[in-house]
Amino acid sequence: MERMVSIRWEGSTDGFLCLIDQTLLPLEYVELKFGCGDLEKVYEAIQKLRVRGAPAIGIAAAYGVCVGIQDFLDADKERFFSGCSKCISYLRKSRPTAVNLFWALDRMSRKLQEIEKMYTPEQFSARMAAEMLLAEAKEIHQQDRCLCAAIGKHGAALLKDDMGVLTHCNAGALATGGDGTALAVIYTAVAEGKKIHVYADETRPLLQGARLTTWELMQRNIPVTLICDNMAAKVMCEGRVQAVMVGADRITRNGDTANKIGTYGVACLAAMHKIPFYVAAPTSTFDFSLHRGEEIPIEERDRAEIIKGFGMRTAPENVQVYNPAFDVTPAELIHGIITENGIITPVTEENILRVCQQK
Amino acid sequence: MERMVSIRWEGSTDGFLCLIDQTLLPLEYVELKFGCGDLEKVYEAIQKLRVRGAPAIGIAAAYGVCVGIQDFLDADKERFFSGCSKCISYLRKSRPTAVNLFWALDRMSRKLQEIEKMYTPEQFSARMAAEMLLAEAKEIHQQDRCLCAAIGKHGAALLKDDMGVLTHCNAGALATGGDGTALAVIYTAVAEGKKIHVYADETRPLLQGARLTTWELMQRNIPVTLICDNMAAKVMCEGRVQAVMVGADRITRNGDTANKIGTYGVACLAAMHKIPFYVAAPTSTFDFSLHRGEEIPIEERDRAEIIKGFGMRTAPENVQVYNPAFDVTPAELIHGIITENGIITPVTEENILRVCQQK
Repeated sequence: MERMVSIRWEGSTDGFLCLIDQTLLPLEYVELKFGCGDLEKVYEAIQKLRVRGAPAIGIAAAYGVCVGIQDFLDADKERFFSGCSKCISYLRKSRPTAVNLFWALDRMSRKLQEIEKMYTPEQFSARMAAEMLLAEAKEIHQQDRCLCAAIGKHGAALLKDDMGVLTHCNAGALATGGDGTALAVIYTAVAEGKKIHVYADETRPLLQGARLTTWELMQRNIPVTLICDNMAAKVMCEGRVQAVMVGADRITRNGDTANKIGTYGVACLAAMHKIPFYVAAPTSTFDFSLHRGEEIPIEERDRAEIIKGFGMRTAPENVQVYNPAFDVTPAELIHGIITENGIITPVTEENILRVCQQK
Repeated sequence: MERMVSIRWEGSTDGFLCLIDQTLLPLEYVELKFGCGDLEKVYEAIQKLRVRGAPAIGIAAAYGVCVGIQDFLDADKERFFSGCSKCISYLRKSRPTAVNLFWALDRMSRKLQEIEKMYTPEQFSARMAAEMLLAEAKEIHQQDRCLCAAIGKHGAALLKDDMGVLTHCNAGALATGGDGTALAVIYTAVAEGKKIHVYADETRPLLQGARLTTWELMQRNIPVTLICDNMAAKVMCEGRVQAVMVGADRITRNGDTANKIGTYGVACLAAMHKIPFYVAAPTSTFDFSLHRGEEIPIEERDRAEIIKGFGMRTAPENVQVYNPAFDVTPAELIHGIITENGIITPVTEENILRVCQQK
């Protein structure tokens, strides 16, 4: 099987955003196509986690803007700009926690403003503006590919031959425009000739580890053992893993890291078992407007994900449920944050600023 | 709804072992009946966790012997004894970790030997022997009811009004012949007028927490919030729980405790959040032949429980899986072990011996 691409744009400005429907994996491999008139379907795809992973959400949203403006390819300047702005505001609401969504939409918004300033209504051509916005989305995508590669290269230095590495959720090719963040580190280490065995937490409630991480690793012939989330402590205690490697959805100035629910627990267990815990994420994941993890808004998701997750109901219908989608791992439990610019370690505000400001 | 009874014997020696099929809860409430010729079905019920929980398994196995000997109610002494011994040996293999299974079958075996010594072949009556064995099984059951009540009473003193209590798996009425162990503590505290809010880990892979603990607590109108296993750390960090209360499958001389997979992780998290972690278990759970947790054999269960646990497959078909059914929590992470004789704290070999030898 050819290497899968989780997100791509097909054709020109009147083309299609193509996404692998990650809610169907590993049972079905379906590529969704979104074209003119499908903006609400793009929103739904982000909201329902058909596309997921902070960088992938950002890229999908940027391309989503390009889908949204297909309605305005023959509009005048005013209609085009108001349509495009509405479309950006609309996509902003699809997922509350992933900072890359806002980051990517902000970039699209800045590009839109640039174009606005550049042309008078008389000079303006909606098709040309759409082309410039598509070019911007493609650049966001291409940059993410490079970020993944750089993260992989920096992080691989931390992994030694014959290591066991535990990961939570999916921070792989499916979650990004490139080879992933946490999994890029593993892919690069393996490409360098190191033998790595991955332990993948299944990651309830949506089982991204069971459904996506194992699938991705198996496609690349990397040995992976699937465990339930509550087995991580035993696996650590048995000496099976020597490092934990996860992604991130948002990181505050001080290094506190929001990631998939369960990450904080894994970080606590790693600390207790003296196993280094690494976060792999591009610098765009940092939200410098927030000082501490407590300030990160945490999305609470539908109770059905817990009581009726996979075809059958597994709890009393009317049971009370708590379903936070993310948790926050405090900086002091993180051994290092692997970015495209290098590794931030120890995780202090000073080191974060230094590494993030590097060009 | 009348208070449910997870195990009961119906009728006399030619009667029935009745069990709630716990694999069907909470969707269906089905009572299974096992009579003459059903020994293999009793074995299957234990193996497939239709009956589960260390004390309940012991009681079911004791009654299982009474089902097994229904084939020999008209046999002579020699045939009766060889049949009954075979039946005990057979049931012994149904679950490898729960010490109560062996403990209960040992009691049945000792009773059998007593009967053997008591009567010559001429005096011997199979029906009378069967009655004595049934009486022994009923006594094991009745004693368990008393143990649960005593554990509940001792443990309730540890819980204060308005506490949040986290529990893992199901150590309730469904797991015992009485009101449970960990949940008996909660039931008793509530009966004493304390307001308790329970957080129930769903407990992958078999979801005993989601399916059974929530159901049991809701039947008794005790507030319960269901969470995924990987949310326990967040719930602790948010200050929602002030105590952890779990059951046990086997405890070694030094206090190391085997319990449902995930318990060890919860104990680590409780330690990190300075929340007391309690084990509630009858003294019969202690296996004094073992010195340390490492010696406890840990059952590994079918991969299907992980990759096809919710009615549909949730991971690649041929993925490698690790599925240990239990883990071991070291004594130093346990604040106290609540037994029918009182609370063992701190958990040291000396204190264990002192409390267990009390009458």
